[in-house]
Amino acid sequence: MLGKLCSIIGDCGVHIGPIEPVEAEADCMISDIKLFLADRKQLDDVLKALEAVKGIEIVEVLDDILEMHRRGAIEILSRFPIRSQTDLRILYTPGVAQVCKVIEDDPASAWDWTGICDRIAIVTNGTAILGLGDIGPVAGLPVMEGKAAIFAEFVGISGVPILIDTKDPDTFVDTVVQISSGFGAIQLEDVAAPACFEIEQKLINKLNIPVFHDDQHGTATIVLAALISALKKTGKKQQDCSIVMLGCGAAGIAISEMLLKFGFGDIVVYDSKGAVYRGRTDNMNPYKTKLAEITNKKNEKGALSEGFKGKDVFIGVSRPNMVSKDMVTSMAKDSIVLPLANPVGEISTEDAIAAGAAVAADGREINNALAYPAIFRGALDAKATSITLEMKIAAARKIAELAPEGELLPDILDRNVHRQIADAVAHVCINK
Amino acid sequence: MLGKLCSIIGDCGVHIGPIEPVEAEADCMISDIKLFLADRKQLDDVLKALEAVKGIEIVEVLDDILEMHRRGAIEILSRFPIRSQTDLRILYTPGVAQVCKVIEDDPASAWDWTGICDRIAIVTNGTAILGLGDIGPVAGLPVMEGKAAIFAEFVGISGVPILIDTKDPDTFVDTVVQISSGFGAIQLEDVAAPACFEIEQKLINKLNIPVFHDDQHGTATIVLAALISALKKTGKKQQDCSIVMLGCGAAGIAISEMLLKFGFGDIVVYDSKGAVYRGRTDNMNPYKTKLAEITNKKNEKGALSEGFKGKDVFIGVSRPNMVSKDMVTSMAKDSIVLPLANPVGEISTEDAIAAGAAVAADGREINNALAYPAIFRGALDAKATSITLEMKIAAARKIAELAPEGELLPDILDRNVHRQIADAVAHVCINK
Repeated sequence: MLGKLCSIIGDCGVHIGPIEPVEAEADCMISDIKLFLADRKQLDDVLKALEAVKGIEIVEVLDDILEMHRRGAIEILSRFPIRSQTDLRILYTPGVAQVCKVIEDDPASAWDWTGICDRIAIVTNGTAILGLGDIGPVAGLPVMEGKAAIFAEFVGISGVPILIDTKDPDTFVDTVVQISSGFGAIQLEDVAAPACFEIEQKLINKLNIPVFHDDQHGTATIVLAALISALKKTGKKQQDCSIVMLGCGAAGIAISEMLLKFGFGDIVVYDSKGAVYRGRTDNMNPYKTKLAEITNKKNEKGALSEGFKGKDVFIGVSRPNMVSKDMVTSMAKDSIVLPLANPVGEISTEDAIAAGAAVAADGREINNALAYPAIFRGALDAKATSITLEMKIAAARKIAELAPEGELLPDILDRNVHRQIADAVAHVCINK
Repeated sequence: MLGKLCSIIGDCGVHIGPIEPVEAEADCMISDIKLFLADRKQLDDVLKALEAVKGIEIVEVLDDILEMHRRGAIEILSRFPIRSQTDLRILYTPGVAQVCKVIEDDPASAWDWTGICDRIAIVTNGTAILGLGDIGPVAGLPVMEGKAAIFAEFVGISGVPILIDTKDPDTFVDTVVQISSGFGAIQLEDVAAPACFEIEQKLINKLNIPVFHDDQHGTATIVLAALISALKKTGKKQQDCSIVMLGCGAAGIAISEMLLKFGFGDIVVYDSKGAVYRGRTDNMNPYKTKLAEITNKKNEKGALSEGFKGKDVFIGVSRPNMVSKDMVTSMAKDSIVLPLANPVGEISTEDAIAAGAAVAADGREINNALAYPAIFRGALDAKATSITLEMKIAAARKIAELAPEGELLPDILDRNVHRQIADAVAHVCINK
């Protein structure tokens, strides 16, 4: 019966996840079956198909994703149970007064006697939430909580979601500065370009704790890590590689800058208006103009399909299904294709391989959750006052180094992987 | 040997806490002995006295209070372990996008699908930390973390310490408003009077979530609860009671207002310049002037010692050791004496009883941690937009009702007590 049931679900084009028996009796079996559905219609199709089969009964339909986020993904707990009056008198008044006095006498000791050493703010104004765009900070909160859950699980960092209800960069900056003394670092998250560049730079100037916009630098770090692995696999050298990139938002600009600093030969960046080149006036901003100065050596101005010809690497940080197989086929031999758009890439990795790519990986594999937790852990462990290019490159190198034979990246679920990346980041920082 | 050791410690005037054996062998025993020390000198005295005794060896001296606060009292955890790629894809991208879309379509549903329903900000600028005064927000952070630990342990609320580095009320207010959308309520904490009144009122006006200054209303609520119990014990009625209060800061003003609204006969409030009366010009502020209008019916202007004469209740929210036994003796029969100054009361409860008080309890017993956690829990459970006088009085009545025979207050460690107070608060709110 389970076989029949799975076949019917499969025929609806739906993926089946874990199947867990809930109750088993002689003549029936109740199981919890997780399905991965593209949309509401797929669910209706599956339910209709199953209802038509005698012997199959649907007990309940739960939306697992929503349920997992009910009341939020994270919670704050006391690190010690409060079981006695003594516990209470130590944790709170009058005992806590002594801790306050120690910090008043030596402000730097707050790092030892409070949670600042493990606590960061995850700050957003909700203007560029995932692939959803400007949906506002509250609708973006589940993303911040998801990040906080990842920080907690992977590296023991307490990430506090902070929603700032403004699109004005200066108000945003002032608010973060006002509340910054309670945090060991600031993670900017899902703030739209170009405001994110101004906000990040102003915060870096005003604060002496690390400020890190994950959509820029977390993404750039994990892309570099994947490319280091891909270079090894294809035998290419970064200085000989030419890159075509689609997407000129926060991620695109940061990736370009980091790859050039790492020594890649050249990058041509495309946005919805075509190649970004010196002298372009349509749909530019100061950040694109600056990018045009350091990229696109030959000042290419053609269409995207022209831009693929002979290139070694494609990186997509734009929208789903923007790239054809023909474009990939036109690339250099042993091409590396990273279509990272969310939730579906610019081209499927299967199509990319079929079109001749030697390496293809999308956003499901190239996940920045392998980079940012350890970068922050390392920065906090080293009491870093900023996150430097060296720290990010150290993270990327270590991530690539930890990838098993034949893989681009190591296992994101392996806590020891995060520990080793964090140590590499802290090491660079302490030794500089 | 343990008896000898305890005697020596006791002879130094030091209280002994829990004693826990660490290792036992035939000829020796290693125990962890907690001592409650008034100051560094007491520790030195004890160590010196013990070192002189043959057969006693001190293995290590640890400061338990500091150690318990190392790396902070609280941490953020994921409510679910991340064990598989599926977990990650549900908690974070791509699954989380669905949760975001649900909230984008129905903003009110954020209460269900994020942690806002359990998350509050504990906000301070560090200007009135415990009895320590204006030590700044970072030195005050251990207090905020202690409160957050209490919230987590007693009522499952995630309290986020937010340090705001300003003494300007408007900057403080603007900052809280900017970050408020991520929280279900705002707890103001250890903000000095009179700025705290302006800040609280402006925030109440600007936000549609509860804003509650614990030093005012948490303290007022627990004082009212204790008085309700004390009235029952002494057979007094609130309308017949005259109160002398010492202290005209945040707590003093809030207690006065709540007790008058509850129906107490009269209150005369004293500060360092004597009674607060209509027409006084020395060391006044708008809040004291307003207080003078509703208190001190006979417009008493005398010294504090005069103020005690014939009064039924004394409440102290000032500084240690300000009240003599003679003052208490001059009060009405069956007087109620609550010397709440931290960390030592205006008079010891023993002295108050010896001087004729029928009821005496200090800040160790009258702990607002019995009030504020449940007030916030009840307010969040009822999705309250403010914390009203009715909610605070409901809390006070329920606290008094739950006190065991012969006690003023119930057991602060009993989680079920907090649950019942919270239910009483939510009940008032939902039924209004």
